[in-house]
Formats: sequence, C-alpha cells, structure tokens
Amino acid sequence: MSVTELIIVLALLQYLFFGILVSRARTRYGVKAPAVTGDPIFERYLRVQMNTLELLVIFLPALWIASADIASLWIAALGALYLAGRFIYLRDYVRAAEKRALGFGVSALPILILLAIDLIGALRGLIGR
Amino acid sequence: MSVTELIIVLALLQYLFFGILVSRARTRYGVKAPAVTGDPIFERYLRVQMNTLELLVIFLPALWIASADIASLWIAALGALYLAGRFIYLRDYVRAAEKRALGFGVSALPILILLAIDLIGALRGLIGR
Amino acid sequence: MSVTELIIVLALLQYLFFGILVSRARTRYGVKAPAVTGDPIFERYLRVQMNTLELLVIFLPALWIASADIASLWIAALGALYLAGRFIYLRDYVRAAEKRALGFGVSALPILILLAIDLIGALRGLIGR
Repeated sequence: MSVTELIIVLALLQYLFFGILVSRARTRYGVKAPAVTGDPIFERYLRVQMNTLELLVIFLPALWIASADIASLWIAALGALYLAGRFIYLRDYVRAAEKRALGFGVSALPILILLAIDLIGALRGLIGR
Repeated sequence: MSVTELIIVLALLQYLFFGILVSRARTRYGVKAPAVTGDPIFERYLRVQMNTLELLVIFLPALWIASADIASLWIAALGALYLAGRFIYLRDYVRAAEKRALGFGVSALPILILLAIDLIGALRGLIGR
Repeated sequence: MSVTELIIVLALLQYLFFGILVSRARTRYGVKAPAVTGDPIFERYLRVQMNTLELLVIFLPALWIASADIASLWIAALGALYLAGRFIYLRDYVRAAEKRALGFGVSALPILILLAIDLIGALRGLIGR
C-alpha cells in the first residue's frame, strides 16, 4: 500500500504548492481578497489550482480503489503520469490559456485508466467473480 | 465492499461528465479561459459542476465510512438517490437557476442520512459499544 | 479508528455548515444564482467555503493515512486544531478579509504535520522498514 500512499501524499503536496502559487500571485498582481478576478495572470494561477482540485477529487478515490486490483508498478506509473501532467498544465496555462490542453490530457489519461480499472473491479465483485 | 465501490465510481464518472459539459459550454457560449463569467448558461453549467464538487467531497467519505455499518442494499439506495438528485439538479439548473432546489434536496438528503449513520457509528465506537 | 472517523464526520459537518452560510448570504445580500459576485460580504462567505474545500481535500486523506501510524490522541488534537482554525477563519474573514491569516495558519498547521507524518510513513514502507 505504501506506493499508493506515496502517490497520494505527492499529489496532495503538489496541490498545496499550486495553492501557494495562487496566494503569491494574489499579492504580486494586486488582487485583493475576496476578489478572484482583476488580473489575467492571477486568474490563470487560480484556474490551475481549481482544475487540479477538480481532477484531484476524482484521482484520489480512483487510485485508492484501483490499488486493491493492480500492481504497485502500475500505481507508480499512473501516479507519475498524473503528477507530470499537472506540472505541464501549470507551466503551459500560466504562459497562455490556449496551451493548456496537453497538460490536461496527460493528467486526465491516468484518471480515465484508473476509473476503467475501478469499474471492472466493482462489476467483477458484484458478479461474484 | 463492491456496491460501495460501484457507487463511488459512478459518482466520479457523473462528476467527470459534468466537467465535460462545462468544457463544451465554454466553447459553445464563447467564454474564453481563464474567464468563468460572461454567459449565463455557461455560468449555470459551471455552478452545477461546482455544487456537485461541494457535495461530492462530503458524499464520498460519508458513504465510505457508513459502508462499514449498513447493508449494501442501503448503500445502493442512498447512492442511487444521490446520483438521480444530481441529474435532476443539472437538468433544472440549466433550464433556470430558480428551479435548482428540488435536485439539490434529492441529492443532499442521502448525504445527511449518511452523515447521521457515520456520527452514530463513530460515537458508538468511542463509547466502546 | 473511531476517533479518526469522528474527526472526519465533524470536518464534513463543519464544511456543510459553511455551505449553508453561503446559501443564506446569497439570499440576504441579494446575489442571484448563478452569479458569485456582486456583494463583498457574500463573496467573503463564499471564499471561506472555497478555502475550506481546498484544505478539506488535503486534510481528509492526510488524516486517514496518518491514522495508521499515530495514536488516537494525536489524531484528536490535530483534528481539533483544524476545526478550531476553520471557525477562527470564518469569524475573522467575514469581519475583514485582511484578518484571515490567523485562522488559515491554525488550520493549515495540522495539515502540514499530517502530511509530514504521511510522507515519513510512506517512505518507511517503501524502504521496507
């Protein structure tokens, strides 16, 4: 279970880091709380954090459930892909909003694979294997 | 555990689907990233996704904890109610923001029941049963 | 496990309560859905809920993983700190956005401690202890 836990902790730390970037952008670009608009670069950092939140709530349970069915090596590979995809997403989205597709795709792919594994596992369990 | 896992996976897939609808609405109604305002129909799709995120982070842990205490049939019934409530919420909110109460209520009810089951279970565990 | 579960349920109920406050503020300050801006007090309630969501998705998995490694008393203490920090955050942020740092810090601290415990636990597991 420790590889799964390591991936979960790394994904949480990455998300925390994205939150720190939003906080820093808030100060740097002069967007005073509670406002969430007013500067396009700040808004892009915020959207990176929000989009990561949206994926994280799918990724974590999907990974956790799949970890009962697949080998640690697969968990590690899919987790690494998700983490790398999110960093690409951050880099590209901050450069220009139009460039965000690649990073999104790279981090969404392992999530779709995990959901497929989960669905097969759940249905197998129901049928009684 | 497989019924619980199936409900979790279905809730994740539903949430993913709501995200795809937001992405499609972004293109269709010409709301360019990183903006999240500018068209009322896009904003309603976004609010459906956000509200579902807000409920999902309560629903999943509440369901998971309750699954140790109640029968699979109850898990399935409460899960089905949540999923149906979210689809009603989507349909009605996109039609008109004022109509969103019913779907919200139908999906919030099983969450409240699950939280009550969890609370009783946790307190029982503390007392040492 | 029951102390961990109790903390999780209390954190979920607190987050639900923050959501109810947003809903009430929406009515009171006349911010019609799907809008999320237009009144500064409403926006502050919304930011409290959003920021709590952002922390909650880190707090819950971090707590769950750590609960395998540390005593219930520690779980209870870190959980209480998080919950108290969130209530301070609510009180202060609604008064004035500039006052939100203390509550944020008090609720972020136990999350950082939990992540450190998780990271050590995961690495230890990998090394094979």
